[in-house]
Amino acid sequence: MLIVGELINATRTPVKAMLQQWDAAGIQDLARTQADNGADYIDVNAGAFASKEADYLEWLVKTVQEVVDRPLCLDSANGKAIERAMKVHRGTSMVNSVSMDQQQQEGLLPVIQGTDCKVIGLCMGDRGNPPETAEDRIRVARELMGVLEGAGIDRDNIYLDPLAQCLSTNDRFGIEFLEGVEAIMSEFEGVHTICGLSNISYGMPMRRIVNRAFMVMAIRSGLDAAIMNPTDRKMMSAILAAEALVGRDPFCGTYCDAYRESLLED
Amino acid sequence: MLIVGELINATRTPVKAMLQQWDAAGIQDLARTQADNGADYIDVNAGAFASKEADYLEWLVKTVQEVVDRPLCLDSANGKAIERAMKVHRGTSMVNSVSMDQQQQEGLLPVIQGTDCKVIGLCMGDRGNPPETAEDRIRVARELMGVLEGAGIDRDNIYLDPLAQCLSTNDRFGIEFLEGVEAIMSEFEGVHTICGLSNISYGMPMRRIVNRAFMVMAIRSGLDAAIMNPTDRKMMSAILAAEALVGRDPFCGTYCDAYRESLLED
Repeated sequence: MLIVGELINATRTPVKAMLQQWDAAGIQDLARTQADNGADYIDVNAGAFASKEADYLEWLVKTVQEVVDRPLCLDSANGKAIERAMKVHRGTSMVNSVSMDQQQQEGLLPVIQGTDCKVIGLCMGDRGNPPETAEDRIRVARELMGVLEGAGIDRDNIYLDPLAQCLSTNDRFGIEFLEGVEAIMSEFEGVHTICGLSNISYGMPMRRIVNRAFMVMAIRSGLDAAIMNPTDRKMMSAILAAEALVGRDPFCGTYCDAYRESLLED
Repeated sequence: MLIVGELINATRTPVKAMLQQWDAAGIQDLARTQADNGADYIDVNAGAFASKEADYLEWLVKTVQEVVDRPLCLDSANGKAIERAMKVHRGTSMVNSVSMDQQQQEGLLPVIQGTDCKVIGLCMGDRGNPPETAEDRIRVARELMGVLEGAGIDRDNIYLDPLAQCLSTNDRFGIEFLEGVEAIMSEFEGVHTICGLSNISYGMPMRRIVNRAFMVMAIRSGLDAAIMNPTDRKMMSAILAAEALVGRDPFCGTYCDAYRESLLED
């Protein structure tokens, strides 16, 4: 499972304040904590600052990579901001995200083409409508795959995000997401799926219980990457157990290693 | 989800001692606790006492039903013991279990035929070999369905147990079980599947994490009954979340009710 740590996001109030104060130590703490807890990529998002987004994103890349050796997930719909961030990024970054929005594609694709970076393809319709059914998701996924592979991006570098919707608004939204993941993973062999799953439990009490169960089911459906808080030990433990259960962890080795390092939490 | 409370089982040392002392109060406490925590059926097992099993089982039925209004799951391979237990049982019992063992079938089927009781069909091969693959499970399931439906038992009263095997001995044993459940539920529309899942984590550390993840996946695969400890709040919470996620809990009503009654545990 590829884990993208989600904590350095300017929509979170403390992070917004850190950016406004160019608080490198605060950002670096968040980066280190996530890397220490198993994040493979560190997401950086400065989307709350429209006009200064590129300045902030570039600064975030430099600031984070001063203290951790992980690649970053550059989280912006703005081609100019991604371009500046990629110029200072060391290693192979991930771009979050390309959707079927024409204008966004025109800004992002020229920046991505010819690089080896990983790309998240968001299964949002071209009028910005979130997908409801599995069918909606696979339809947008087909369009996105056409665009991304058409731009020369390797399938192995593509991470499709099927977008989780709130279960409390429609009983079918759990199932439709899971079936969407299954359809994508079987139609596009070798592609990846990624998601920030917590939207599923919006409006429900004790959301962590629902989020963990949904993650476990999504892994069974084939999800192989997640945008999440890696310091959530119970979630990480559920992921490790789920990976062992679906046969992705030979001899349960990673699960048992995590136990020996006291990383599991019941 | 139909929950069968597993705690009154003579293979558990304290329960064995209670039986040896005809400790009705101890047994009744265990029965009440399980009923209060959401058990739909209370399993009673006196299999540790070969020669006196029928006496003990009859006594267990009377003792438990003095204090709880739940039906019982009569857990024995011994037709005579089941027959005596059914005679004193009030309501519609469940019989645990019929397998492809010829001798066992000859003892149990005449007792079950013509009643409306529910029957667990154990997907164990006729030489007592546990199933390894999904194919093993569906093959034995077909034989069992032939025997049980042939004996006039309604499909809605049949609960097939696909038997969980230890993941630590074979990486595929999680997947093969889940695919077995899926195959059974799709081939025999209207049948149920039941299992005591905890065997999956035998030999692994922090087994509860693995057991919960496996339960969540099994629910997604179609499992609709479980033999378990209903006082395990984290497991019950994971089950409620999983049922909401697969669309079995309209408007997440049961999940939210459990929250209001402070039954959920993160």
